[in-house]
Amino acid sequence: MNAAILKGKLTGVGTGPGDPELLTLKAVRSITEADVIAFFCKKGSTGNGRAIVEAHIRPGTLELPLVYPVTVETHKDETEYKAPIADFFDKSAEDIATLLDAGKNVVVLSEGDPLFYGSYMHLHVRLEKRYHAEVVAGVTAMSGCWSMTGMPLVQGDDILSVLPGTLSEEKLTERLQNTDGAVIMKVGRNLPKIRRALASAGKLSGALYVERGTMANGAAQKLEERDESPAPYFSIVLVPGWTTRPAEEFIGDGK
Amino acid sequence: MNAAILKGKLTGVGTGPGDPELLTLKAVRSITEADVIAFFCKKGSTGNGRAIVEAHIRPGTLELPLVYPVTVETHKDETEYKAPIADFFDKSAEDIATLLDAGKNVVVLSEGDPLFYGSYMHLHVRLEKRYHAEVVAGVTAMSGCWSMTGMPLVQGDDILSVLPGTLSEEKLTERLQNTDGAVIMKVGRNLPKIRRALASAGKLSGALYVERGTMANGAAQKLEERDESPAPYFSIVLVPGWTTRPAEEFIGDGK
Repeated sequence: MNAAILKGKLTGVGTGPGDPELLTLKAVRSITEADVIAFFCKKGSTGNGRAIVEAHIRPGTLELPLVYPVTVETHKDETEYKAPIADFFDKSAEDIATLLDAGKNVVVLSEGDPLFYGSYMHLHVRLEKRYHAEVVAGVTAMSGCWSMTGMPLVQGDDILSVLPGTLSEEKLTERLQNTDGAVIMKVGRNLPKIRRALASAGKLSGALYVERGTMANGAAQKLEERDESPAPYFSIVLVPGWTTRPAEEFIGDGK
Repeated sequence: MNAAILKGKLTGVGTGPGDPELLTLKAVRSITEADVIAFFCKKGSTGNGRAIVEAHIRPGTLELPLVYPVTVETHKDETEYKAPIADFFDKSAEDIATLLDAGKNVVVLSEGDPLFYGSYMHLHVRLEKRYHAEVVAGVTAMSGCWSMTGMPLVQGDDILSVLPGTLSEEKLTERLQNTDGAVIMKVGRNLPKIRRALASAGKLSGALYVERGTMANGAAQKLEERDESPAPYFSIVLVPGWTTRPAEEFIGDGK
């Protein structure tokens, strides 16, 4: 007679914005206790999330790369992107379910915070009713970026808007006019449009452009001084709220 | 002949949302290396930030409580609050400057993330030009809350709005209509107004109410099921974006 196998636990672990020291104690414990570490990556790469946590993976831990079937940067807005990506999340969830059914504890790495624009959430909604699922909050990329520059984003009763750079110029302008602080994500090829929207909203002069925040090669500069060369997809633009603050410039190097 | 004293370093350290395991490795290192730990608190209490990091404070570390002269909860919108609080930040910055001038490394604790609605930023803007100042990003209270509930907030090209509960009902309604996900902070006595605004915007049914997210006594429930008794000032309301997600209910206990 076989004893029933106790199902494993699913844990979505935020790896923070890039600096391995911005991992939480709970993330480190989850990773060291895992039977399996799963992580999203592009073909030919093991991804940023795994690189951030590498020092904490025990020898002998199973690794499950979840390789995106298409490149998000280029196909995101196209209809033909949607079906393969849904199939990919279905298939990834079932691969993980098989491991959980076998009693393995599975950690899924998520850059930044798992439920804040993270791919992990697509697995979470597919698995959280069938298995014990836990989410370990992480430091978001935007927190990493504004901390690196030392520029306060919002205080008191400020409104903060997190906007995708993919919005139309008209909508971006309107949103920027109607907020105090703002973070613009997915800059990439949208940089010239974002710059025009900020200028129309009268908020270009305080805005900062940040690439690879908190990573060893991270860099920040005034958006006004950034040239028009293509920006990486994951670069972000920070627009400070707190208009009554002492008029200083904030571009620290985070060191 | 006296050698010149090397000035100390100022570090604003995010303590995360409450669970001591959500401290980052860098926060722990900064705290264990500090000569002085400063923290904001109310009269008669040493505050949440210090409680979160207590296990990591070395014996013999100097502690500098920065005691708010007035209670933020009751006086925030009143003019007579502004002068004493500005004086308090001036005085606190000068006390810290004295320690930095004496060569002490000073850590200022900040619940959540230091530059995201944190009191630390008022010291940062007063000191960052005169001293070497670094900010250690932390997990925000909102990340802690949505991770505890397991409810994805925003994905893909969603807009997220962080709104203070102090906005007028009309403005809150309008902002809730024009966003995907939302986080409403400073709930407290604004709870009935927030509920009406969410109902007007057609977003009441998915909203969650969270108290003391990630703390041992934290609790989450559907806002619709929350009674009308007064809410703590630091409770928050989460409004999910990602309207195309599988229709599930997310209220985990975070354990």
